[in-house]
Order: sequence, then C-alpha cells, then structure tokens
Amino acid sequence: MTIRCAVVGATGIAGQQFLSALQGHPFFEVVRLAASARSAGKSYRQALTQPSGQVAWWDTPDALDRFGDMEVVEATQMSLEGVDLVFSAVESEPAWELESRFAERVPVISTASAFRYEPDVPIIIPAVNGEHARLIQVQRERRGWSGFVVPIPNCTTTGLAVALAPLHTHFGVKKVILTSMQATSGAGRSPGVIAQDIVDNVVPFIRNEEQKVEKETKKILGVVGDDSIVPADILVSATCTRVAVLDGHTEAVTVALDKPASLDEVKAALRSFGKDMNPRTHPSAPKDWIWVHEDPFRPQPRLDRDTQGGMTTSVGRLREDDVLGENGIKFVLVSHNTKAGAAKGAILVAEDLKSRGVIS
Amino acid sequence: MTIRCAVVGATGIAGQQFLSALQGHPFFEVVRLAASARSAGKSYRQALTQPSGQVAWWDTPDALDRFGDMEVVEATQMSLEGVDLVFSAVESEPAWELESRFAERVPVISTASAFRYEPDVPIIIPAVNGEHARLIQVQRERRGWSGFVVPIPNCTTTGLAVALAPLHTHFGVKKVILTSMQATSGAGRSPGVIAQDIVDNVVPFIRNEEQKVEKETKKILGVVGDDSIVPADILVSATCTRVAVLDGHTEAVTVALDKPASLDEVKAALRSFGKDMNPRTHPSAPKDWIWVHEDPFRPQPRLDRDTQGGMTTSVGRLREDDVLGENGIKFVLVSHNTKAGAAKGAILVAEDLKSRGVIS
Amino acid sequence: MTIRCAVVGATGIAGQQFLSALQGHPFFEVVRLAASARSAGKSYRQALTQPSGQVAWWDTPDALDRFGDMEVVEATQMSLEGVDLVFSAVESEPAWELESRFAERVPVISTASAFRYEPDVPIIIPAVNGEHARLIQVQRERRGWSGFVVPIPNCTTTGLAVALAPLHTHFGVKKVILTSMQATSGAGRSPGVIAQDIVDNVVPFIRNEEQKVEKETKKILGVVGDDSIVPADILVSATCTRVAVLDGHTEAVTVALDKPASLDEVKAALRSFGKDMNPRTHPSAPKDWIWVHEDPFRPQPRLDRDTQGGMTTSVGRLREDDVLGENGIKFVLVSHNTKAGAAKGAILVAEDLKSRGVIS
Amino acid sequence: MTIRCAVVGATGIAGQQFLSALQGHPFFEVVRLAASARSAGKSYRQALTQPSGQVAWWDTPDALDRFGDMEVVEATQMSLEGVDLVFSAVESEPAWELESRFAERVPVISTASAFRYEPDVPIIIPAVNGEHARLIQVQRERRGWSGFVVPIPNCTTTGLAVALAPLHTHFGVKKVILTSMQATSGAGRSPGVIAQDIVDNVVPFIRNEEQKVEKETKKILGVVGDDSIVPADILVSATCTRVAVLDGHTEAVTVALDKPASLDEVKAALRSFGKDMNPRTHPSAPKDWIWVHEDPFRPQPRLDRDTQGGMTTSVGRLREDDVLGENGIKFVLVSHNTKAGAAKGAILVAEDLKSRGVIS
Repeated sequence: MTIRCAVVGATGIAGQQFLSALQGHPFFEVVRLAASARSAGKSYRQALTQPSGQVAWWDTPDALDRFGDMEVVEATQMSLEGVDLVFSAVESEPAWELESRFAERVPVISTASAFRYEPDVPIIIPAVNGEHARLIQVQRERRGWSGFVVPIPNCTTTGLAVALAPLHTHFGVKKVILTSMQATSGAGRSPGVIAQDIVDNVVPFIRNEEQKVEKETKKILGVVGDDSIVPADILVSATCTRVAVLDGHTEAVTVALDKPASLDEVKAALRSFGKDMNPRTHPSAPKDWIWVHEDPFRPQPRLDRDTQGGMTTSVGRLREDDVLGENGIKFVLVSHNTKAGAAKGAILVAEDLKSRGVIS
Repeated sequence: MTIRCAVVGATGIAGQQFLSALQGHPFFEVVRLAASARSAGKSYRQALTQPSGQVAWWDTPDALDRFGDMEVVEATQMSLEGVDLVFSAVESEPAWELESRFAERVPVISTASAFRYEPDVPIIIPAVNGEHARLIQVQRERRGWSGFVVPIPNCTTTGLAVALAPLHTHFGVKKVILTSMQATSGAGRSPGVIAQDIVDNVVPFIRNEEQKVEKETKKILGVVGDDSIVPADILVSATCTRVAVLDGHTEAVTVALDKPASLDEVKAALRSFGKDMNPRTHPSAPKDWIWVHEDPFRPQPRLDRDTQGGMTTSVGRLREDDVLGENGIKFVLVSHNTKAGAAKGAILVAEDLKSRGVIS
Repeated sequence: MTIRCAVVGATGIAGQQFLSALQGHPFFEVVRLAASARSAGKSYRQALTQPSGQVAWWDTPDALDRFGDMEVVEATQMSLEGVDLVFSAVESEPAWELESRFAERVPVISTASAFRYEPDVPIIIPAVNGEHARLIQVQRERRGWSGFVVPIPNCTTTGLAVALAPLHTHFGVKKVILTSMQATSGAGRSPGVIAQDIVDNVVPFIRNEEQKVEKETKKILGVVGDDSIVPADILVSATCTRVAVLDGHTEAVTVALDKPASLDEVKAALRSFGKDMNPRTHPSAPKDWIWVHEDPFRPQPRLDRDTQGGMTTSVGRLREDDVLGENGIKFVLVSHNTKAGAAKGAILVAEDLKSRGVIS
Repeated sequence: MTIRCAVVGATGIAGQQFLSALQGHPFFEVVRLAASARSAGKSYRQALTQPSGQVAWWDTPDALDRFGDMEVVEATQMSLEGVDLVFSAVESEPAWELESRFAERVPVISTASAFRYEPDVPIIIPAVNGEHARLIQVQRERRGWSGFVVPIPNCTTTGLAVALAPLHTHFGVKKVILTSMQATSGAGRSPGVIAQDIVDNVVPFIRNEEQKVEKETKKILGVVGDDSIVPADILVSATCTRVAVLDGHTEAVTVALDKPASLDEVKAALRSFGKDMNPRTHPSAPKDWIWVHEDPFRPQPRLDRDTQGGMTTSVGRLREDDVLGENGIKFVLVSHNTKAGAAKGAILVAEDLKSRGVIS
C-alpha cells in the first residue's frame, strides 16, 4: 500500500533532498511536485535551471533523471486529488497559508518554521520526542482539520536536540551555550550564499536562527500535556555563524547538567540513545543516532556529515567544563543539515507517524 | 572643471567598483546613481541589502560610507539634467535601450556588451587601440546623437587583448587558443555564483563568453577605417571556465606569431608596452601595463590581481610552443576582472577620451 | 587463489586509495605496508598522524579501521617473503632503486614516474593499450628479472589518453593543446598543497607535469614493436595548473584530427570505447570508460569525479574548432586523479595482467 | 638611533610578517635573519622555497625584494654581535633554549609560548597591560640576564584579551565561554594546514590552544605584584576550531560581568579603549584598538581583518545573554592573527618598551 506524496517547495535544496530520498522509498511515492509561480508549468529540470543556464542540482543524477521531466505545479494552485501526504519544504513566509490549506485534507510534514511555535503543534524528531505526536489529535480537533501539520525543527536545532536528549533523560539539562558553524546549503539555493560572501570568510549572523534554536530545543525536550507542550526548563543561548562548508552544520556546545555525570557516563548515554528503532518500520533511521568520536580532531563536517546516510549526529571533543555551571560538559557535534536536518528528517517523521497509525 | 557622472547599474559588482574608483577622482564626480526598478527609491545601502539582510559590499568601507545614503533612481527614468557623462554597468539585455537614450545627449562609457559589435562603435582599451576613438564621430553623425557609446571589452578579453597587443605590433598574431579560469565576481552578485556551485569545483562553461572573447579580440586589435573597424586577421579559440577565485581572471594562452621571435624579444615587447601614458591625464593608468614574471609559479590571481591598482596585466610562464603554429609561444596571464576588466577600465577610457578632447 | 600484495608508499594519498580499493578485493590481499624511514616501525595509523596530531585520512573509515594497526615497514628494508605482487606509490626519486629491487623477484605495478620513459617499459591503461603488456617479456629478459615494472601514467595523462584513444583509433590524432586545472590531492599530503597557496587562488605551474603529459600521451597511444614502443606521431602541448579542488582533474582539450569527423561521430566513438571488459576478470573497470555529457555545464569535478567508482572519464562541451588544425574539435574532461589516475588505475592494470596470465 | 634587530624564525608566516612590518620601520632595522638548520646558509628566498619549487611568500613583494638575498643563519649558531634586539617567531619547542641564550645579552620579544607561563615573565599587549613590564626588572635579576624575554600572547588570546580589557576595567569580568574559528595561517606554513584538511570543512581541535587561551587571558588581565602577576579571577572556557579562512581569527564570546552594564555602556567602554597611545612613540598602534560594528553581519574576517593595518579588534553582534551568569553579554570578534596576534603585536610591544626606556 503505497502512500502518495506531494513535495511542495520541490525546487529548493531541501526539495531536491526529498526527491533523492523518496526515490525508491518502500512506503512513499512522489506523485506531485509543487513550487512557486516562477516554476509553475515548467518541467522540474527547467525549474531548476538558474539564470546562468546551469541546472541547480548537486546530488547524484538518479533522482534528477527520474523526476526531471515531471511538471511542476504552482503550490497555491496544487490539487490534493490523489495525494495522501504532503512533504513541505517551502519558505516560511508562504508556508502558513499553504500548509493550512493542505492540512485541512491531508497530513503535512514540513521543514518550514511557520507552525513550529503553535501550542497544538509538536516539533518531532522520532527518537527524541516521538510521543509528542499525541498532540496531533488535539490539533485536528481544535482546527477542524482532516489532516494536520507536523514540522521538523530548524536544521541547527536537530543535531543539538538529538545530542541533548539522552543527556536530559539521564542527567537533566539546565543550561546550554552553543556556537554553530553552518553550511551554505542551509541558506538554500535562490539566492543562497554567494561565493563573494563566504569564500575565505565567516559570516557571523543568520537572521532569526538563534531564536529558533533557543525556542525549539526547549519545546522538543519538553513534556507533552493534554493539549500542549510544557517546554523543558532549560536556558539556551546560541550564536549562529556561516562558514565555507557545503553541507553539515558543526556546533560547539557547552552544557550544565542537573546531576553530576562522568565523561564515561555521558558517552554511554549518548551511545545508547535511539537504539530501539526497527529498520522495517523506520527505514530512514540510522543504526546509531549518535556516534561518539574519541579522536579529538573529529567530528568534521566533510568527513562525518554522511555517516549512516546523513542521519547520525556525530559527537566528539567531549570534555568537562567548570564555567557554565556545576556539572558542566562540552563537546562538538556535526549534523547533516539537509538530510537529518531537513528532508530525510521529515521522511523519518512520516515513517514514525505511519508506525503509530497516524498516517496511512 | 569637474565632469558630473551618473553611474547606472550602480548596485552590481562593477557598479560598486565604479563608486570605489570614482570617490576622490580628480576629474569625475558622481552625482547620480541608477539601477533597476527593484532598487529605485531606496538608499544605495538599502539597495545593496540582500534577502538575507546582509549588505552586498566587499570593498573598503569608504565608498559605501560616502554613497550609502544617496538615493538610487530607476535607470529607465533617470534624468540627464546636470549629468555630463554616464558610466554604465547595466546588464546586457536592458543596456541597448538605456544606453541609446543616454547617448542621445551625453557620452556613455559602458561595461555592457550591447553595442560592442556595432560597426560604428569602437571597443577601447586606451593603450591598445585608443585611436579607435576616431569612430566616435562617425557614430554620432550616423545616429544623430549628441553623445555616444563607447563600451569596454568583456573582462576576459581585456587581459588577453593587452597581452596580445604588443605581440601583434611587433610580430603579428595569427592564431590564439586560450583557456580561462575566471573569478566568481565576474558573474556579478545577483544571483552571482553560489557557493554550492563553486566550492571544491570548476564550472566548465560561461554562456556567450567564448564568442565574446573571440569577436572582441579581433575587433580591438583591428584597424580603424573611415567608418568602421577592419578586424585583425586572427583566429581565436576560447574555452571559458569558472573557478573558486573571488577576483582576477587567469588565462592560459597559446599564440602562433607571424614572424619568429625569441622569448627575450617577446618579453621585451611585453615589458615596453604602454609606457607613454601621462599620469596627469590618465590617473587610472598603471605605470606598467604588463608585468612579466620570471618565477614560473606566477602569476597567481590572489597575489597578482591587485598589482598597480588592479590595472596591470601580469604575464608569466612564457615558453615556446611548437604545436599551434610555426612561431609559437605560450603563457599564463592574470587580469583583475572588476578593475582593469570593468570599472577602472571604463574610467580610464573616459580619461583617455578627455585627453583627446572627446569628453569635456 | 589470493594474490598477496605489498603496498609501498602506503601512507601517501595514493597509498590510502590503494588500501581503500584493495580492502575486500576478490583477487588481491594486502599483506605488507611499506613507507619511508620516518614511518617505519609505526602502526599505519600512527604513520598517518600529522605534526598537528591529526590523522591524514580522508576516505571512509573502513580501510583505516582494517589496516590502522598494521605495522609499516621501511620500504628499503622490506622483505618480499610471502609477497606475490607490489603496488608502488612511492615518490619518483626513491622509486628507481626500490622498484628495481622488487622487480628482480615479483611484478611491480607503480604510480611513480621512474620507469615510465624506459624503452622496455610500457605505460598501461588497459582499455587503451593493454596489448603493450607484450613488452614485459622483453623487459624481463633484458634486465634478468623474475618480476617486472609496469607504471601507470601520470594522473593528468590518464584522462587525456582515455579520451584521445578512441579519437586516435577512429580519426587519427595529430595535435593536442590542453590546459589542466588539477586537484590538490594530486600533490600528495606531505607537504601537499597548503591552504595558504590555493584558497581563493590558481597556481599556474606544476613542476615536470607538462613534459610528463606530453611524453606519456605519445607513448601510450603508440604502437608496440618487438622490443619497444613507437610513440604516436602526435604533437602535444600542455599547461598544467592547480586549482582549489580536492579531487578530480579538469582538462580543457583542443585536438586536430587527421580525418574529418562530425561531432556526432566523435561522440559515438567516445561512447563506444572500452565496452568489452568483463567485470569478472576486471572488477575495477567502469561500465563506461567515457561518459559524454550534453549539458554544457558538465563535467564538473565535484559532481563527476566519482562516476562509476571514479574510473569513468567524463567528457563534455564537445565543439568544433577551426584554430588548431583542419579537423579540429575541443572538449573538457574530468578524471579522478587518485582513483582512475592512481590507485584504482594501477589495480586495474594488475587485473588486466592477471587476465593475460602475466600475473598469477 | 636605529635599534638593530635579528628576526629568528624568519621563514615562518609570522617571520614573514615581521619582515613586512619592519621594512621601513622608523626605529628598528633588520640586520640578521635566523631559522632552523634546514634553512641555514641559504638566501632568504631559497629558504622560503617549498619542495614544489614555489616560494612560500604571500605578502606584497616589497619585503621579499628587500630581504630575499640576505643569508639565513642557523638560530642555534646566531651571533648577537651588532644585534640590539631579537624578535623571535620560532616554534615553541626550540624557543626555550634559544630565547634563554639570546636573553642573556639582549631583549627578546617573542611570539612563542615557551616563557609565557613563567612567574617572572609578563605577557604584554601594550594597551591592555603595558604596566606588566615592571616585571622585567625582576626577571633580569632573578635570572642574571642582561636582556630579557617578553612574549606576546597566543594569537587567539590577543583579540579576546583586547575585547575583555575594557569590560574588566569598567564592569569586572567573571566568566568567559568562547568558540574560535581560526584562520589557516595560524598553523604556520611548514607543514601548515593542507587543503585536503580544510577545504569544505571545519577542524574542531587545535592542540594545546584552548589551555593557552584560558591561562593567558587570566594572566594578561591580572595584577602585577612585586615579583609576579596575580591572575585575574576569571573562569575561561574555550573551544578552538579551524576554518577555511586564510587570515583573521573569529571568536564567538559570551561573558558574565560582575556589575550590570547596558549594551550602550558596554559599547562606550569598548570604543573608548586604548585611545591614549601616541603614534610618534607607538607607530604600530591602531587609532582604534576596538571597532564596534552595528551591522549584525559584521565583523567578518575577510572584510575586517585588515582594519587599521590589522591591529584593530573588530567587535560586533553585541547582545545580552541570560545563560552564563547574571550580567551577561555576548559578541563576536575578529582579530588578525599574524598581524595584531603575532608580528605587528610583537613590534608594538618593542615600541612600548622603548617608550618606557626598557629597550634602547
């Protein structure tokens, strides 16, 4: 029983990753591609063609070969006829209206931020807070929707929340200070980050990014109540920067824990996280949600971003810290921003909701 | 007696270079900034602000401080009231109409290609073919214009034509094969070259570039007749590629000469080229139009692009070649694409035309 | 019947690629690792550790996990006891003496240039000139060796020779002018190319590289006689540059052919090249030795270097040329310099010699 | 009265910066160049030549032209005859012995870490703690030296200490957490950071760097007593990473202050810092020790590293922080690691000691 999907925002970088990941997926079949008015009526390949004439496709050619001739429809006009599920990778501004319309009829799994801060909307990373899916029923009833919207986190939140989850469970997380060094693919492709801004450079600011990381982390690690989520009582402070890396966000994280924990206990907690997912029901889940490196020179985005299909959060440089708080630790993590942090992360949510019977 | 200038296309990379170079110029004063409708009515600084919020300005802050608050007008609506001269850095498509309108009243020096291939329009590099300015009178009469249009060459042609000029004068150039490795600034800034396309990469194609280089080189090295230019009888074959360099085009050039020439004679010809310009009348001209390196590892774009204010063509790796033709040589050159090859190159043309009494 | 191999020069970039490619190979098993005195006595992992403390390994972790604890012996002291075949990736200077000693007893397949220009030594790319293996018998007799040395070409020659081979067969190649834009991995890792030299830059010179390309191309495309190779009567002129690309050499090539050939005929010749290799006997051979792109923006090193395990030469931008000679064409190619152009290229030679009964 | 200097470690990146900065300096004249045994007896230009043949010089050609033919002597054998002052840029391991020997006779200003943690050795940044020079007399007496050693801080400490100094003076600094994104030039040139390690990548570890930053910051901001320095009572926690930037370290810093301070008060303190230096006595000092940016996208290393000759610390993104402590602020800074953080920083120390009569 194939679930028929539309990919909305198909021409962006996350959209491309959706098509690459959905091609040959055991549960989901792509039946419709949608994007902005600029792309509507064009073939997918034409819609990806930049003003220079160059096709903006950086993945293996298979998915482009498979979907290149498919027509792109305008997202605002897209029919849901024959569509069971929408994967949305649209920009945040149009997302609210678009996703509302889709959600009236079908489930929407989204990489956009539009709905993330609504009280009846969970932000889900399956191994971290799959049980927040409980809120979907509340959302449907309150909004009178047949479908629903479940966003995944911002790509910088994803790796952070995964790494913090086992720490929060085992030792309690009280404070977090992080600096991210984010990949250029995180800015998308139109306009994206131009070479003139990033070669031989660091850009120390990404608009709205820090607030997203701070808010989302607390919500994801929070406790789901009857009709909303009680955010975790964690203080989070982020500085988000852009570096000359194509894919893979690197984050330097300092954490104050509630209870004392030796570095060995911390490692054990990280390594044992998320081991109970069944590859049959969750084919996009990594075997290891967290990989802990002992080599202090790791993780590195170019070497570690693609670990286990880009779904593993790589952690290294685990050290004690006595500055932030009493039981302090610090570490560096790498997470693939357009795979775990976008398309494949959203597909995994769909797999998880299917396994819970929420999507069918 | 200051000449009052408008800079049209002021928000692009070449436009920025115009403002940097004209700030404090002894002859020219910027009195108007124009760009596309998107920028019209905004301050120059606002007009440079990218969707991310980042100001697209990569030069020293002085010129941005100087012009940041000046209002940008729409190019199609720009009044020529109080304007003696137009520097045009608009894209080629709108250039034809815009520059025609301006040229009815005032001189236009342009980096755009729109008029380059017209029979009554010279493409000028002062040290190479300043005497082609003779055609301006023909152009004015034929078109009934008070002003005129003089374009400079494509940025890839500039370094090539400068290096070939003394060879052509002394030994005759018969055939040229070149491969360019072009900087990202050559693609402008909106959209420009995005990091996703160029980091850890080479892009082997730049639309229309090769034809421009082939055509313009022959015209610039040609002989000006009574009412047009007889192109030089040279065969030119170009492959134009893009590399991960911010500024400065590198070109690997093989040349077949008409007469035999030892490498020492070639060097002497290159080194003695363009020495007769007066810095009083031509303040933007370099002392050395061509710098010949003996170190085989030079020229390199990062080290040599800014030689003498970015106006010197750096040549190195001079060797004999026996493949292209009888009297073959080969070399590598570096030329600053947004200085010598764009804004400062155009300003130097204006200086030269002023020294000839064509602009006043 | 496994063939027991030593990898000499195991700690360099080509050495690493040997181990990655030989791990799990159906015919070959690595039984010894050798390198310079500096590495001798260390574990392979220790030997890879740079002064900064960072392990110089950029491939997937598998091969490092597999060989990391194996001891590295000094190449000059290495025993051939239990070794059936030597893969040599040593630098050219020590290669002559080392490979001579090994070849007295066992076959040596080498990426070094030391023996390439000896009259009784073929430089082999199996699909191009596998039949040059005939010369091995001459070499053995003349030198009184039980083994032999077969070098593969310089990494810049490899892609060129592959692309020229079908052209030479079908239409005759008379002249070649090329500009290479070579990856940093081609310079090895110690010292390799430092960031200070290549970020935001092009380096226009690689010592000895151009002569190698010119000489080797003629020898590889030559005809094997009774006791030496008659080089092909082709004029080759190369300019070799380094660009900020990690892996994959890009080459802009202009060719004058003996007979007229339409672009369609050229494409057909390229596409049909090397189709007769059996994956059972040649597991490292690509299905397509040459992939011809129609998209003018391809090939690009980052997107195309890994095509078919890095063994396919990608060709694009095929155009007519009327400058070099009568039947001129030009194109751009990308070839993986440390796979097809080094380790995997050498392993494929070993596979081919095994299939011919020369190695067993 | 010129002070005659030797530059030891002249062939490294800091050494090159010394020569560039000392060329034409009003007080100091370079009379001797020293380096390791490998360089001894060679001309400076030969000594800079890498195995590839390329000269490792990335600055403007003037200083190389000036010093290229000067002979390099072996540091361990260098005579102090006719030398009034030693600038040392040697690596830390040999620094202890070398600098001890030199200091017996003449003052040594060093970029090496060997002496930084000795109780009788101040680490000086003139505007921050010039008065620590008082300890020099103690050092001389205790060690029986005619000269002395004054090291400057690690290049990552420099920008941090400059930015913290006015905060500490005005509001008291209690805790600091920082993440650095360091330039490749910081690793020197032999071996330096190779392209294979840093293009499209971040390396999350630099050996010993974090401890240096933590220790030095406290010492520099400490109080000089009769015979040693009482370190400031500040907790410092650093994560040091390497990014693909050629020059200029970027640091994301979070600070907990002792007293409350509005962002405007913080800015005022930063902006007014170090204004009392006389350019006649301190020609290398910047007019503004700290430049505060209001544009949230600044500072960026490529745009801001060269501010005021690379001697200004650029600060931006100033925000309140409520995670680290009660009166928290956070910001991003950029500091030129081989200018302010190495050669020019050391020269400025010499100028300052001269103005205090300690050097003559």
